[in-house]
Amino acid sequence: MKKLINSPENVVADALRGMAETHPELAVEVGTGIVTRAAGPAPGKVAVLSGGGSGHEPLHAGFVGRGMLAGAVAGPVFTSPVPDAIARASAAVDSGAGVLHVVKNYTGDVLNFTMAAEDCADEGVQVEQVVVDDDVAVTPVAGGPGRRGTGATLFVEKIAGALAEEGASLAEVAAVARKVNANARSYGVALSSCTTPAKGSPNFALGEDEIELGIGIHGEPGRERRTLMTAAETAAVMLDAILDDLPEAAGAPVILLVNGLGSTPPVELYGMRAEAGRVLAERGITVARSLVGSYVTSLDMAGCTFTLCRADEELLRLWDAPVHTPALRWGC
Amino acid sequence: MKKLINSPENVVADALRGMAETHPELAVEVGTGIVTRAAGPAPGKVAVLSGGGSGHEPLHAGFVGRGMLAGAVAGPVFTSPVPDAIARASAAVDSGAGVLHVVKNYTGDVLNFTMAAEDCADEGVQVEQVVVDDDVAVTPVAGGPGRRGTGATLFVEKIAGALAEEGASLAEVAAVARKVNANARSYGVALSSCTTPAKGSPNFALGEDEIELGIGIHGEPGRERRTLMTAAETAAVMLDAILDDLPEAAGAPVILLVNGLGSTPPVELYGMRAEAGRVLAERGITVARSLVGSYVTSLDMAGCTFTLCRADEELLRLWDAPVHTPALRWGC
Repeated sequence: MKKLINSPENVVADALRGMAETHPELAVEVGTGIVTRAAGPAPGKVAVLSGGGSGHEPLHAGFVGRGMLAGAVAGPVFTSPVPDAIARASAAVDSGAGVLHVVKNYTGDVLNFTMAAEDCADEGVQVEQVVVDDDVAVTPVAGGPGRRGTGATLFVEKIAGALAEEGASLAEVAAVARKVNANARSYGVALSSCTTPAKGSPNFALGEDEIELGIGIHGEPGRERRTLMTAAETAAVMLDAILDDLPEAAGAPVILLVNGLGSTPPVELYGMRAEAGRVLAERGITVARSLVGSYVTSLDMAGCTFTLCRADEELLRLWDAPVHTPALRWGC
Repeated sequence: MKKLINSPENVVADALRGMAETHPELAVEVGTGIVTRAAGPAPGKVAVLSGGGSGHEPLHAGFVGRGMLAGAVAGPVFTSPVPDAIARASAAVDSGAGVLHVVKNYTGDVLNFTMAAEDCADEGVQVEQVVVDDDVAVTPVAGGPGRRGTGATLFVEKIAGALAEEGASLAEVAAVARKVNANARSYGVALSSCTTPAKGSPNFALGEDEIELGIGIHGEPGRERRTLMTAAETAAVMLDAILDDLPEAAGAPVILLVNGLGSTPPVELYGMRAEAGRVLAERGITVARSLVGSYVTSLDMAGCTFTLCRADEELLRLWDAPVHTPALRWGC
């Protein structure tokens, strides 16, 4: 394993120390992984809180700031933060208007956020939970964990954060978060696995001419392995998987995220954006907004994910609203 | 070689198509690689123009926008754009107040920008050139090409762009650009080489426990190869190299860039930021501002560079000034 780290045990704490020094607008608790706005809770406004295992940066701490998250809780690499940290973060960000927990659909995250919400209720902090489960590579089975939460998490956090900034109630912010999740689908491909600091070797091996389709963001193997295709062919496979699950997309404008998984450079991501635009135009789908970059990553994995979110006027307005975070920033 | 591309020949054109679709605020000419602000030249203001080989994204096209570049010219991967494209871009961005060419110090870039400046003079477009040569890994020899231009290019483009936005003259904008370059130094390390689309294999090979010190951003081998060190040790080696060349840095505030080369994830970059902060504090140097991310890249190379720029009040003010580009954005 080759990484610029001190030791596998200290990766997250060291990164949090660096975040604290780089972003004075954030309050970073290195020990607990709690990152909040240094300015404290916005009076009267709902707080949107997220969190999960580390290794997906800039998700989540990079999205803390005005117009998006009130706070984030970083667990160890690919491991949920503990309920106590989530509950403490919730209390820290609550202005009295309540806290929305944005939770990616993984067993550990859902369990720990649910336990934290119970603790919050005991402490008088009102919590609503929205679970993000956008990854169409997973076919849910009865009684199973359901779909994984991936790129749509960014859309949920941005749009719910924008509505919270406007002063909406907790019920309204939770409702728009669920609306985004209901309208968003993702699919990912990888040219390499990732290597976690603790394991030190890739989670799966791919041949020099192979691409893995339908991967997750924790080094999970995908649904299918194929011979490497062109960008055009890859984009078509990815969008077929998404659109099969989102049949009503035709005619509606969408927000498109072309997301790098960690080691795929901008020239490739923008090339994939161009191919996605071509395929979507052929299907009669208008890309109203798009975002290209490495936002929901899997350490050093090579590959990319597409997320599509059908967007009505409300969602587009909230997407366009100002956001001031380390990783996502526009408007005034 | 595994890349999400259509063909090595089309990588840059495909990426430019994607940029055009993603960023309606930019005017992108796919054929020539010229990227300018869609709004056209800012009346009465100096235009800061840069460019060079592709493969370093977001540098340069990702820095086109208010408060930074007026335009950028993208050449083929790691290959300078031709003089004709540079001259055409200069004419396109000139408001009549003149154009500053920010050129990284590589033989081809300097040659082609110099030829373009001669064409500009013939056409009545006033041009000043500033050459960025910040990489202390290169020891200049008499008659040689001198030091390479790397991370300081971002500082030059940001700060010169901010002064141009304030309405300063071409001579003033060129002077501040030279001041930034004179006060900035960089050093880089790699855990892997990069793979260009045309060559298809890594430019150099590193063992599983090796780190290359003093690398460039085009897959050039470094000055020295060592056994992989901790982040703390690596940061100290990098800053020793920089500070040996910037002895007056102690006591002065600096702007610090911790820059990923393409496939080094944020957890590692922020960890390196923390180690840099520790080393600089030990040397009595105050980090007044810092920026952490993959901004001046080398395709899919793993590794990072540090750039330090001694900054007086003028440079800090211009650094803090609003900037609205795809890759760098703050203020209103």
